[in-house]
Amino acid sequence: MKRTAILLINCPDRKGIVSTVASFLYEHGANILHADQHRDDESSLFFMRVEWALEDFDLDEASLKDKFSSIAAQFSMTWQVEYSDRVPTIAIFVSGQLHCLADLLHRHQTGELNCRIALVISNHRQAEPLTRYFEVPFFYMPVTPETKPEVEQQQLALVADQSVDLIVLARYMQVLSADFVARYPRRIINVHHSFLPAFTGARPYHAAFAQGVKLIGSTSHYVTATLDGGPIIEQDVIRISHRDQVEDLIQKGRDLERIVLSRAVRWHLDHRILCYANKTVIFD
Amino acid sequence: MKRTAILLINCPDRKGIVSTVASFLYEHGANILHADQHRDDESSLFFMRVEWALEDFDLDEASLKDKFSSIAAQFSMTWQVEYSDRVPTIAIFVSGQLHCLADLLHRHQTGELNCRIALVISNHRQAEPLTRYFEVPFFYMPVTPETKPEVEQQQLALVADQSVDLIVLARYMQVLSADFVARYPRRIINVHHSFLPAFTGARPYHAAFAQGVKLIGSTSHYVTATLDGGPIIEQDVIRISHRDQVEDLIQKGRDLERIVLSRAVRWHLDHRILCYANKTVIFD
Amino acid sequence: MKRTAILLINCPDRKGIVSTVASFLYEHGANILHADQHRDDESSLFFMRVEWALEDFDLDEASLKDKFSSIAAQFSMTWQVEYSDRVPTIAIFVSGQLHCLADLLHRHQTGELNCRIALVISNHRQAEPLTRYFEVPFFYMPVTPETKPEVEQQQLALVADQSVDLIVLARYMQVLSADFVARYPRRIINVHHSFLPAFTGARPYHAAFAQGVKLIGSTSHYVTATLDGGPIIEQDVIRISHRDQVEDLIQKGRDLERIVLSRAVRWHLDHRILCYANKTVIFD
Amino acid sequence: MKRTAILLINCPDRKGIVSTVASFLYEHGANILHADQHRDDESSLFFMRVEWALEDFDLDEASLKDKFSSIAAQFSMTWQVEYSDRVPTIAIFVSGQLHCLADLLHRHQTGELNCRIALVISNHRQAEPLTRYFEVPFFYMPVTPETKPEVEQQQLALVADQSVDLIVLARYMQVLSADFVARYPRRIINVHHSFLPAFTGARPYHAAFAQGVKLIGSTSHYVTATLDGGPIIEQDVIRISHRDQVEDLIQKGRDLERIVLSRAVRWHLDHRILCYANKTVIFD
Repeated sequence: MKRTAILLINCPDRKGIVSTVASFLYEHGANILHADQHRDDESSLFFMRVEWALEDFDLDEASLKDKFSSIAAQFSMTWQVEYSDRVPTIAIFVSGQLHCLADLLHRHQTGELNCRIALVISNHRQAEPLTRYFEVPFFYMPVTPETKPEVEQQQLALVADQSVDLIVLARYMQVLSADFVARYPRRIINVHHSFLPAFTGARPYHAAFAQGVKLIGSTSHYVTATLDGGPIIEQDVIRISHRDQVEDLIQKGRDLERIVLSRAVRWHLDHRILCYANKTVIFD
Repeated sequence: MKRTAILLINCPDRKGIVSTVASFLYEHGANILHADQHRDDESSLFFMRVEWALEDFDLDEASLKDKFSSIAAQFSMTWQVEYSDRVPTIAIFVSGQLHCLADLLHRHQTGELNCRIALVISNHRQAEPLTRYFEVPFFYMPVTPETKPEVEQQQLALVADQSVDLIVLARYMQVLSADFVARYPRRIINVHHSFLPAFTGARPYHAAFAQGVKLIGSTSHYVTATLDGGPIIEQDVIRISHRDQVEDLIQKGRDLERIVLSRAVRWHLDHRILCYANKTVIFD
Repeated sequence: MKRTAILLINCPDRKGIVSTVASFLYEHGANILHADQHRDDESSLFFMRVEWALEDFDLDEASLKDKFSSIAAQFSMTWQVEYSDRVPTIAIFVSGQLHCLADLLHRHQTGELNCRIALVISNHRQAEPLTRYFEVPFFYMPVTPETKPEVEQQQLALVADQSVDLIVLARYMQVLSADFVARYPRRIINVHHSFLPAFTGARPYHAAFAQGVKLIGSTSHYVTATLDGGPIIEQDVIRISHRDQVEDLIQKGRDLERIVLSRAVRWHLDHRILCYANKTVIFD
Repeated sequence: MKRTAILLINCPDRKGIVSTVASFLYEHGANILHADQHRDDESSLFFMRVEWALEDFDLDEASLKDKFSSIAAQFSMTWQVEYSDRVPTIAIFVSGQLHCLADLLHRHQTGELNCRIALVISNHRQAEPLTRYFEVPFFYMPVTPETKPEVEQQQLALVADQSVDLIVLARYMQVLSADFVARYPRRIINVHHSFLPAFTGARPYHAAFAQGVKLIGSTSHYVTATLDGGPIIEQDVIRISHRDQVEDLIQKGRDLERIVLSRAVRWHLDHRILCYANKTVIFD
């Protein structure tokens, strides 16, 4: 794979942004591979993702940041630049249900997820053999209401020690504290087993069954201080019927959860997600 | 099409129901074309729909009802019998958006809906030319908060006069009173432009847009006294992205609404729906 | 709606295209509303669609064409420019099944399709009342193998007389001759009632039933000299089961056909489709 | 889980089948949990699946078979009886791509698949560590055109030795000989990475890309002597766009393959599939 750089931009919309950015890149020898823009009519915000091959590009990272800063200032941009060969580090948190963890580990092995999985943290022992099989360090960290603050400090220490870029909650059934969440803004992805905003909170499959819906869904989202209320990244649904009991919903839902979570993780790792107004722009 | 009879049964589950019903029908010469059962594990209820050709069947309607009553009593059945050649009568209520109305009228003409459309009632004038083109009587009945009770009485009189079996709310933007609804239990079908129970109430597409969901949905359901809370009959969804503005959601949603409403109406007319616990069993 | 211009570009990929185009537009006061690019890795082709508001743009059509020609030459571009207020004209061809025609006429009335429907041509009489209700001229033109060449000449004359930009085959069950097709390259859209390339040719629902597939589909595509072989614009599918007989497939398929055809027509009218290598790029 | 028996019936349709079967079961104390029938109008064939709790049932297996034989003869039934506590044995064949194998092994561990996985056979070494991690015997059996007949004999010996009921081809890239297939009629399930009958044969994702389809699919089916032509069990699709290159199709397709194959295996293990006319009836 070619070495590429990715520029993500978010700013008030006005004339000349594309022209200025494209000309800047062209002047420095960038060969643009992908470019995508979005303009939100309501908020008059402009979003851009541009990816280019680095082979003929004449700026190193420091120079790029330096030179682009003045353009960014001119347009009041929020921006970041990423490099495809700088592999992000992730931590996976999991509880007793392992289907999302197994899926992520297997996809990583297959090459679908461009990251290093630094560690798996769980409040249950079940995940240990599977994690060790994939040669990922496993940390058993049981949580009680009393020990939770202390455990979270230990978790944060572990995660910081590994310079983790993204925390993935792969059916981790503990609610993280607001303090924890505040430490990793837009860097914690959770999967919720319902089509949010329907059926927030615990036992959504039971709620869906009681309600008699004809489709069940699953949602991956960034975690914020509002439970099940962060920016939605991806959702999918599957048809059910009266013949499906709660256990059938749970089983069918597992396939959704794996797909919806893994897509969110991949898009995050590929720097395809921009957030604003508690929503996401996905540059696929 | 063959003349057929349809028996719908709902009773506590116990041994011998299928055997008793099947033997009864067999003894009277019924040629069973379709039979479907469902057993709800939680409530221990049993549901059955059986349809048979009448050509060799030796019981007329009165005799069938008479003879089956003792079986029904024995198993504490709630039951009904329907005949395929007894075409149900429907009334359609509509407001200013005509896509669902146009769809139902066209499907009826195509032969998809086995019913007589007796009348269309609207609180707007827009629907009149289309309705008249399809040669269906049209009644313009504007509603204000003050006149609503009186108008509802007039609507009920019209509907009763035509012996209407089913009222279809095809994007009728007035909330029917509890009294009105109570007169047609499980006989009023509405379409709501969201994936219920998410986004109940007014302006669901705006709410979906604000929330940043990745799929929008539509739901058809029987109307009960609880707004947007009756038994769900059918739901479907379509994928959207950040590129879709509210108007795009509205446009994409129209296709869902037409499909979801027309399926509900067809299943009702074909006597394929049983209700219990504010849920539906759809014998498709 | 704002008056906008749309530029569609197709050329060999090389550095500087985006920069050059964006700078050109910026220098002339364009406020870019949407821009989308695509690069096909295999063929090394570059595709671009850019739409801008005309209010501050300082070039009229002739000047734009004149000035952009030199850029186009420099990059060996195939290109076209369209204006949102220049409403395309369409002709609809239909046979005995009217669901696609009714759908297009109703969508047009609703405002979903930005075009003038100049005429409807049919080899059957059934479509006449519906077409006249929507106040569109109707031409009954029966076809036999013997009269086909002559009828096609008459059809071409009618269509040319109205300066038709796009011909929509809305379940028109006659195969157009290669000569006819050659007159409207990439300007005839057909809907085929299967998930192409499966089940080309006649009676695809019967073929799907015989094959026992679990999903049926529908495909809209540009018409080329190869039957059912032109560039695919849109496809969709719906689940079926063993309970569905051929008539059920036909009924379920009608909903797919309407959706798939209307999307293709809308995208074409909005200048969102680029073709290459018998494939389409859809800038949605 | 309750101990249950499952009766599968396939016979010419005539009056009295349901009545006779239901009465027979009732007389012997069966508590019917699920019953489903299907009548194919074209072939006038009748299909039935009935499952009942064994706790009050007064016939053991031998007596059931003995007594039911006369009913079966009377109606010319093809029939079989299965017991839920008799766990089927499966063998999985795999080549170098492990996603379907990993999925099946993980689902088995989760309890989704009611079977014993007796062995994994592969013509590549890659699958060995994963298989051993799940404590399933692994057999490396490379195949060349010359050694294929001999290797197939060894495979058949291994499979016979373990009394395998079902062979699952989990992306096994060798075509089994007609002789091999004939030994396991309706007992070999394959997954093909296209929406059959489109794109049979090798490299279907490349063919789908070249064709420019807008959805890609996957199909699970029983293996017959006709390559990719056996009865279809399940299919699913996912939307793609011009932005997806062949590698994206391959990646998206992997999710489909896992879902479509695992559903087929589960339905087979739960005795939910009946075959006729190269098609399947799925009693879900």
